Amino acid sequence: MYVGQSVPRVDAYDKAAGRAPFTGDLCPKDALTARILHANISHGYVKSIDTAEAEALPGVVKVLTCFDVPDFPFATDGHPWHVEPPHDNMDRLLLNRHVRYCGDEVAAVIAVDEMSAARALRAIRVEYEALPFVLDPREAMAPGAPQLFDSKPRNLCGETHSEDDGYHQAAGAPGLLRFDNWYHTPMVQHCHLENHICFAYSEGGKLTVCTSTQIPHIVRRIVGQALGIPWGKVRIIKPYVGGGFGNKQDALYEPLCAWLSVQVGGRCVVLDCSREETFVSNRVRHPFDIHLITHVQPDGTLAARRAEIWSRQGAYTSHGHGVLENAVSAFANLYPRCPIKADGWTVYTNTPTAGAMRGYGFPQITFAVEAQMEEIARSLAIDGVALRRKNAMPVGFVDGFNRNENYFDSVDRCLDLGCQRFGWSEKKKANLNQTGSIRRGIGCAIFFYTAGVWPVCVESASCRMVLNQDGSVQLQLPETEIGQGADTAFSQMAADALGIPLEAVHIVSIQDTDVTPYGMGAYASRQTYVASFSIRQTAELLKNRILEQAQVLTRQSPSNLTLRDGKIVRVTDGRILMTLGELATQTLYSLDHSTHLTAETTADVKNNAFHFGCSFAEVEVDIPLCKVKLLRLLNVHDAGTLINPRLAEAQVHGGMSMSIGFALSEQLLLDDRTGRPLNGNLLDYKVSTALDHPDLEACFIECPEPTSGFGNRSLGEPPAVSGAPAIRNAILDATGVAVNRLPANPHELYCLFREKGLL
Amino acid sequence: MYVGQSVPRVDAYDKAAGRAPFTGDLCPKDALTARILHANISHGYVKSIDTAEAEALPGVVKVLTCFDVPDFPFATDGHPWHVEPPHDNMDRLLLNRHVRYCGDEVAAVIAVDEMSAARALRAIRVEYEALPFVLDPREAMAPGAPQLFDSKPRNLCGETHSEDDGYHQAAGAPGLLRFDNWYHTPMVQHCHLENHICFAYSEGGKLTVCTSTQIPHIVRRIVGQALGIPWGKVRIIKPYVGGGFGNKQDALYEPLCAWLSVQVGGRCVVLDCSREETFVSNRVRHPFDIHLITHVQPDGTLAARRAEIWSRQGAYTSHGHGVLENAVSAFANLYPRCPIKADGWTVYTNTPTAGAMRGYGFPQITFAVEAQMEEIARSLAIDGVALRRKNAMPVGFVDGFNRNENYFDSVDRCLDLGCQRFGWSEKKKANLNQTGSIRRGIGCAIFFYTAGVWPVCVESASCRMVLNQDGSVQLQLPETEIGQGADTAFSQMAADALGIPLEAVHIVSIQDTDVTPYGMGAYASRQTYVASFSIRQTAELLKNRILEQAQVLTRQSPSNLTLRDGKIVRVTDGRILMTLGELATQTLYSLDHSTHLTAETTADVKNNAFHFGCSFAEVEVDIPLCKVKLLRLLNVHDAGTLINPRLAEAQVHGGMSMSIGFALSEQLLLDDRTGRPLNGNLLDYKVSTALDHPDLEACFIECPEPTSGFGNRSLGEPPAVSGAPAIRNAILDATGVAVNRLPANPHELYCLFREKGLL
Repeated sequence: MYVGQSVPRVDAYDKAAGRAPFTGDLCPKDALTARILHANISHGYVKSIDTAEAEALPGVVKVLTCFDVPDFPFATDGHPWHVEPPHDNMDRLLLNRHVRYCGDEVAAVIAVDEMSAARALRAIRVEYEALPFVLDPREAMAPGAPQLFDSKPRNLCGETHSEDDGYHQAAGAPGLLRFDNWYHTPMVQHCHLENHICFAYSEGGKLTVCTSTQIPHIVRRIVGQALGIPWGKVRIIKPYVGGGFGNKQDALYEPLCAWLSVQVGGRCVVLDCSREETFVSNRVRHPFDIHLITHVQPDGTLAARRAEIWSRQGAYTSHGHGVLENAVSAFANLYPRCPIKADGWTVYTNTPTAGAMRGYGFPQITFAVEAQMEEIARSLAIDGVALRRKNAMPVGFVDGFNRNENYFDSVDRCLDLGCQRFGWSEKKKANLNQTGSIRRGIGCAIFFYTAGVWPVCVESASCRMVLNQDGSVQLQLPETEIGQGADTAFSQMAADALGIPLEAVHIVSIQDTDVTPYGMGAYASRQTYVASFSIRQTAELLKNRILEQAQVLTRQSPSNLTLRDGKIVRVTDGRILMTLGELATQTLYSLDHSTHLTAETTADVKNNAFHFGCSFAEVEVDIPLCKVKLLRLLNVHDAGTLINPRLAEAQVHGGMSMSIGFALSEQLLLDDRTGRPLNGNLLDYKVSTALDHPDLEACFIECPEPTSGFGNRSLGEPPAVSGAPAIRNAILDATGVAVNRLPANPHELYCLFREKGLL
Repeated sequence: MYVGQSVPRVDAYDKAAGRAPFTGDLCPKDALTARILHANISHGYVKSIDTAEAEALPGVVKVLTCFDVPDFPFATDGHPWHVEPPHDNMDRLLLNRHVRYCGDEVAAVIAVDEMSAARALRAIRVEYEALPFVLDPREAMAPGAPQLFDSKPRNLCGETHSEDDGYHQAAGAPGLLRFDNWYHTPMVQHCHLENHICFAYSEGGKLTVCTSTQIPHIVRRIVGQALGIPWGKVRIIKPYVGGGFGNKQDALYEPLCAWLSVQVGGRCVVLDCSREETFVSNRVRHPFDIHLITHVQPDGTLAARRAEIWSRQGAYTSHGHGVLENAVSAFANLYPRCPIKADGWTVYTNTPTAGAMRGYGFPQITFAVEAQMEEIARSLAIDGVALRRKNAMPVGFVDGFNRNENYFDSVDRCLDLGCQRFGWSEKKKANLNQTGSIRRGIGCAIFFYTAGVWPVCVESASCRMVLNQDGSVQLQLPETEIGQGADTAFSQMAADALGIPLEAVHIVSIQDTDVTPYGMGAYASRQTYVASFSIRQTAELLKNRILEQAQVLTRQSPSNLTLRDGKIVRVTDGRILMTLGELATQTLYSLDHSTHLTAETTADVKNNAFHFGCSFAEVEVDIPLCKVKLLRLLNVHDAGTLINPRLAEAQVHGGMSMSIGFALSEQLLLDDRTGRPLNGNLLDYKVSTALDHPDLEACFIECPEPTSGFGNRSLGEPPAVSGAPAIRNAILDATGVAVNRLPANPHELYCLFREKGLL
């Protein structure tokens, strides 16, 4: 069995040797270079663009503007298509006359090299009609605010109003304590290592785009829609990817790049985002303003919970209101024993567009809920861990919408393991009664998550397996390796499901929509979960076909045959009758019955699975310096059976790092007076780095998920959820200061410490 | 229906625009360059190689010699593997100590560029132990001749001795005329436009070779064998190919290139043959010495036929004796009404290796047989056409070996059409009694051919079809486009078999053994024939799956539904219920039953098919100049139903051009004293060009082949078979001089004309 073993990554050697091809590596050397002209106003209209000077420059091939693009509005969010009438999110063109944020795309240059393209950008003269702009969601909803879309009154992208039966009664019950708090989370960016890059060309009657994306098959559809061509005439190739975290779950510049290639007769055109463009003109995480009112019995039992959430969408819809809806489900189900009322508004503003980002609304709402839980615990003098245990999702709970069931007491077990590893009680005592200027504190937070997107969207996954003459198998999947180690986990699953050695599984890592079976790619935390269905199912089919051939060749009953470690084994006495390689060779080259053994199936996944976990943080706060030093961060997860414990640990480390940045340092700032980004670069945007981290500690419990092909749940996003509130609660523990606006950087702490009289 | 229509080539636009990727286009710019050091002696041993000076040169990365290569003897011929014990043809190493011809590979250089590699080649010092060599097959069989292989006494690669029951009785019958003649065909080379080129690198644990080959899946196996690694660890990518004609049905330098890449840690290494290397160190056509003795009744009825054939194999086995065996079947079946006796020997000599070349023994033996038929006709004063009709294969004839049946009177019908178009009888009369120094003559020849290689080798073909959301289909086949237009024919077949528009078929032209279904590729004249089985069969499966979904979506009985022009049609009233695109989209994105519709099957082909045809030639011979001017050449073929008449015509034109070169100008010459090639370049080797051609005339009859998926037979090789004897017979008609040694160039004619007293 390979599932459960920490086998080395299948791409380790190629990546270490610099041999794994990323998009930039594959771009032909003679490709033309495209660069985008981004608007430098936050709201308004392009009145005219003078491209004459730019076009006259040496090396410039073509300049295209928002007056040239086809009139096919399209959406960029990477979800499967809906056969019911489309969502109202087809809101952007390839280049836009109506400028909706400072950074919007208004023109593009195609040149023979980077230098010529850059010179041409500077030579383009744009005349704008500037309009008032709005940056704050609540201001944007107010009467008289600047409007981003005619069809969207009050700048509303979406709104949610949900109220459980009995909420008002429960909230109005006598003897309850009422907690009323506001929380604010920042605009952060994914900061994946590899910026988005793509190149496009025409060949074989197809418009081909090679791109750094999480979702090749979905990008194919979006390119077809944006250009108004049949989807079958589009081909997307996805090489290795240097991280995505949700940013590359949008069709970022693939449609534009494809169209630019068409404008130069199908020649290859490359569009390689700078880091500055990545920060401002890709996607960001939705900043949330959250108002929580919670009614609690004196013993800590939650009685009724109310949330109001304003989500800042930015200039275009992208993933839009879905992120807030996800947050509302997180709000409801983290503590689902009492009735809730939730209202949420996703609001267009003249700011960078928010899209998918690891956690998809959960980090924001979990920060607020788990911060307030700490207020409640302190106020009632109940231990925070105990308070959470008391109110968390009970075993047997079934989500009314997606039918997810909580099969295990995972929260308790995660908290047990976490408290013990962390030394929760001992530290709690040790930190009492600190008075110096440097103080220590501890905090914790819990969370839950789900795996895929069923039943919001269709969840299906196809898989193809191709048997080679040596008994090895090519494994073709639509699920994408984007740095997380997915290919390794899939290979382990396939080896076990087939009964062949791991080294006999050759995963085809590069997706190519021409030949890769259909599937949706890397988003939510779906891949290892949904692929467990498709790999298991396809392996069964291939194994049956193999054993049918084995019957022909060995004259044994197929029911008395199995495939074990790459060998055809007689079940009753365990005798090895032949190797799979011998079978494959004899079957393929048989003059009697030549057959190429392959299998391909679609798994139609109608399940989803809960993931539970918690974080424990210890900080040392230097009050005069307003600086937080993170001493420890420990995450505990129940991701079901771990496919590869070491990769799982690495996945958790990455998410924890993100939660540290979210808690302490990261935010993309805009100038209030202009809407212009102030720090859209890696020097001024304080991304969390290894230097800011303690040794990250990840541990697991493994309650096997009964719906999954290999007992596994999700693990992609969960590690990014609970770290920030745990750190925030540790600061509170150390200083008595509640940080309700992230990040808890010195600027924020200075104000709070002054307010509290600590400075 | 698209089958039968002359639709434009699917690759026309890309090829005209220079956009279709050939191997050289795909080679990374930072690839290392490999060059081969070829032996300059014809036979002997490498005693030592001093590489020190070469390795010290700037830009030289590594020098490898015949002392470094692994000891895995391998065969290069491109046939499917046999599960029975392998043929005795594993006779070469990647580089060879035992030099067997002038041009053998003894060392290789890897350098950063072409120039450095060339300099390094000149700096390598090789010490040889020279041995006596032998160039002529009959001399090579004689006692005391130099031996090329210890295990092959008398230098015999293979021998065939076949005698029909009753042969001796028939040959000894009273009153027969006896014709006893010798014929000799030259060593010619394929002269495809694109020389062989390949590049190799390691990635994803696989050794990948991108190569200009006809047979990607077979090359995969050979690379695995030559390097001693599991075949599943080898990946072959075949881009567009600029012609092969059988030369690229050998693994030429893919194994060496792959091994060289391994020697530099898997870095990309490119090996790009020069034209000179292509002539001498790739493959050539087997020169035949043929001795025919034919016993004929006075009325022209053939009574008994005898052939002795010596085939010059050259230095290594490659396709070896199979070519002669094929020629013996051609000898027997062209005129199968009387018993035959045939003896043949394929003999190793110290000359370039002979391999597969368009026609595979048929052009050689057909030249001899059809030349002798002309002698017989003249001798008996019977019209040559009439003599052939009288003795050709009768309707209903069944080949005892491959069970091919002759279903139609194709020979008669081809001759009818040819005589009429050519004006055979009129010209015959017009040419009587010429006396001047410039004389005209006409000649004809018939031939037959087969499609594939069943039952000599396994004949199977897989096919995969993938339905897109817009109702278009990717068509994945192992059969290769090598310039002949195969992709277009396959697309037409698939469109008809599925019932979708031609533009909705997207053929995946580039084969990649990782994902391309298994199949053997372009050789024999198999592809359009075997793919007709696999495309038909796979389309049926996909169509059934589509109609099952149509039943779900339209609530109609699947037996009352069909797919027509990309639409789901109710059979009974012809109503269009939905488009295939709507069905595909609804099926893929259905929340109820998401399925990606694909189909993949292997067709196990146990048929083969006869192809018949003939050539008519008219020449004008300038006796003092010893020059032949070809005035007309007309080919008539029965290739069954033509998939694409214009492509069929182009295919025939190409073959006719080859037959003209074979008849009149082409031969690769060796120096008798040294064995060194004298004219291995396009300046001195007189390849047939458009300037040497009259307007080539191709016409067809179409007797539909009952065994084939679309009524089609073969058309790859047949056009190259009968042109040369027709031209030779026309020269005989014009001058009375029988040219029995090709090519009929001025050197040859001068001797013959002198002999005959014409000069």
